[in-house]
Amino acid sequence: MSHVLQELYALIEPVDLLLRAHANAHLNSLAKPPGSLGRLEALAVRLFCIGGGSIPLRVDPAVVFTVAGDHGVVAEGVNLYPQSVTRQMVRNFLHGGAAISILSQVASAELFVVDAGCAGGPFDGHPQLISVRIGNGTANIAAGPAMSLEDCERAVLAGADIAAKAAGMGCHCIGIGEMGIANSTVAAALCCAYLELAPEHMVGPGAGVPPAGLGHKIRVVRRSLESNANAVASRDPLAVLAALGGFEIAVMTGIMLGAARHKLPFVVDGFIATAAMVAAQHLCPIVSGYCILAHTSAEPGHVAMVQRLHTQTPLLDLRMRLGEGTGSALAIVLLRAAAAIYNDMATLEATVNGQQA
Amino acid sequence: MSHVLQELYALIEPVDLLLRAHANAHLNSLAKPPGSLGRLEALAVRLFCIGGGSIPLRVDPAVVFTVAGDHGVVAEGVNLYPQSVTRQMVRNFLHGGAAISILSQVASAELFVVDAGCAGGPFDGHPQLISVRIGNGTANIAAGPAMSLEDCERAVLAGADIAAKAAGMGCHCIGIGEMGIANSTVAAALCCAYLELAPEHMVGPGAGVPPAGLGHKIRVVRRSLESNANAVASRDPLAVLAALGGFEIAVMTGIMLGAARHKLPFVVDGFIATAAMVAAQHLCPIVSGYCILAHTSAEPGHVAMVQRLHTQTPLLDLRMRLGEGTGSALAIVLLRAAAAIYNDMATLEATVNGQQA
Repeated sequence: MSHVLQELYALIEPVDLLLRAHANAHLNSLAKPPGSLGRLEALAVRLFCIGGGSIPLRVDPAVVFTVAGDHGVVAEGVNLYPQSVTRQMVRNFLHGGAAISILSQVASAELFVVDAGCAGGPFDGHPQLISVRIGNGTANIAAGPAMSLEDCERAVLAGADIAAKAAGMGCHCIGIGEMGIANSTVAAALCCAYLELAPEHMVGPGAGVPPAGLGHKIRVVRRSLESNANAVASRDPLAVLAALGGFEIAVMTGIMLGAARHKLPFVVDGFIATAAMVAAQHLCPIVSGYCILAHTSAEPGHVAMVQRLHTQTPLLDLRMRLGEGTGSALAIVLLRAAAAIYNDMATLEATVNGQQA
Repeated sequence: MSHVLQELYALIEPVDLLLRAHANAHLNSLAKPPGSLGRLEALAVRLFCIGGGSIPLRVDPAVVFTVAGDHGVVAEGVNLYPQSVTRQMVRNFLHGGAAISILSQVASAELFVVDAGCAGGPFDGHPQLISVRIGNGTANIAAGPAMSLEDCERAVLAGADIAAKAAGMGCHCIGIGEMGIANSTVAAALCCAYLELAPEHMVGPGAGVPPAGLGHKIRVVRRSLESNANAVASRDPLAVLAALGGFEIAVMTGIMLGAARHKLPFVVDGFIATAAMVAAQHLCPIVSGYCILAHTSAEPGHVAMVQRLHTQTPLLDLRMRLGEGTGSALAIVLLRAAAAIYNDMATLEATVNGQQA
């Protein structure tokens, strides 16, 4: 099975960082003091390198994939909201009334909702819905693995396939977000395993502190790590993802790998999407070259995750903690701005000589 | 003379902060955990209060005014670039090749360039050019006042008139930025005077460290404060602005006052635009209620300015230090996002009951 994944990893090429010099030289030739656009310039350099040096830099059309799934660990009372909210929110995404429906529109990115395995069975068809249901919600990680290795691989490959199709449709940038009641518990457990962090450093309120309190959520994460001790000890990144992940998390991981395989920049939302990125980096470290972190989540554990990724700091810090891809959508505007600066600004020479069009 | 300004101040009404409770109640009724959109929600609350409780919240059409002027202090060798660059950049703004030309487009804001007094005489007419020339560049602040009190008042009123016209044309949000070789020296001197800060805490490289070094720039600012000691000691905010300001700075101050007078939110760019906001706050403190700080400038003194304004922290931190309104343009997208969230999200109740449209 894992043979297919190995083939996917082998197709991912590292980003050519030698291209940075060319991009910086171009940016320094533009009508502005060198470096004065700060992180926007750094972002343009990254887009140039990710695209292999092609110009113009392209971000559009941009898409956002909001991946939804349910989690057996909800049975442990780790959440403020009932599991049915995942399903209600998927419908809300499709009806246009959710935060991500609105912010993807503001950001001129097309929204697709991916059902990776919501409880309660398939949704009615909808032009914005992509169904890759791996199951009807995962098993309870506090009692054992979330899913089988086979299902985990199916989820990752389904995600990679979604990215491949987006690339095939001419998309130039992929925003990634999620929905799934209890997935902040799962993301915390997953990152404790990958990053060898203590549950008390990774567990936060998520969508809201459960009635049983934050201490209870920490204990559930600790129990989840114990119940999956063999997978954790194996240090096999796929086994860890199967044991402590979720369908939407594994599908997001797959979208990231697929985006990298097609040399597309992908924008990672907050706490849970970043956990999927931690998994992607453990599966195939060079995927990081294609990753842009959208924002610093208000969820306390996010900073520790970001530090361990050893990539650039997130672009925005608006104390958001909603998920859905809301941070990704906003960050896509910054990618578009960076690309436009690179593509369209006049050079200093043309400006001084009055040679503008 | 100052009678006309007093009339302007008297027309500015304080933002009604009692409206916050209503705005927060609405945001908390939406389909998301309360507060989970962080600063985007805080921004929506501010827009609601600024607009006096009208719904829907409106940001569009949004405009950016990039105000340009020249400075006699350029003679002191405080700059890396010659004075002629102000003029060249104004042409570049109008020709569409400058960073602000491009970023205002990305942000779907209409760009207008205001000639507040560039050296070298008037520009040829252009549909995006607004000419309110107060003079042919200011006098050298290191040797005396930048301008007369009368010219300063003319500049402030010209700015207020620009904002009034924008309001009259149906504009709902005003982004503010600037261009003017040597204006980081002037902005530093101005803020030292208003905020009683030492030049070494306010002077930074600006567009680039001048050949004579940063120490030279600090000494020029100190000399400027000494040469205008009477105005500084008077604590008359208009006298300070006349002594140590610039035409584009005073016009920006006027745009801020005019925006507040018409209950429009205005977005303040980086170091120099924030200095104009410091002036506006000294002229009429309640103007702060309408002010949104776009971004934290990479210019070191900006943080001290922002702290003294006692308003919210800037929305973005992208290590930018170009000016022109580039930060304002990007921040306008966040205002639009906040307004759209407030206006268009479904309520939690409708989501749970499946009552979406």
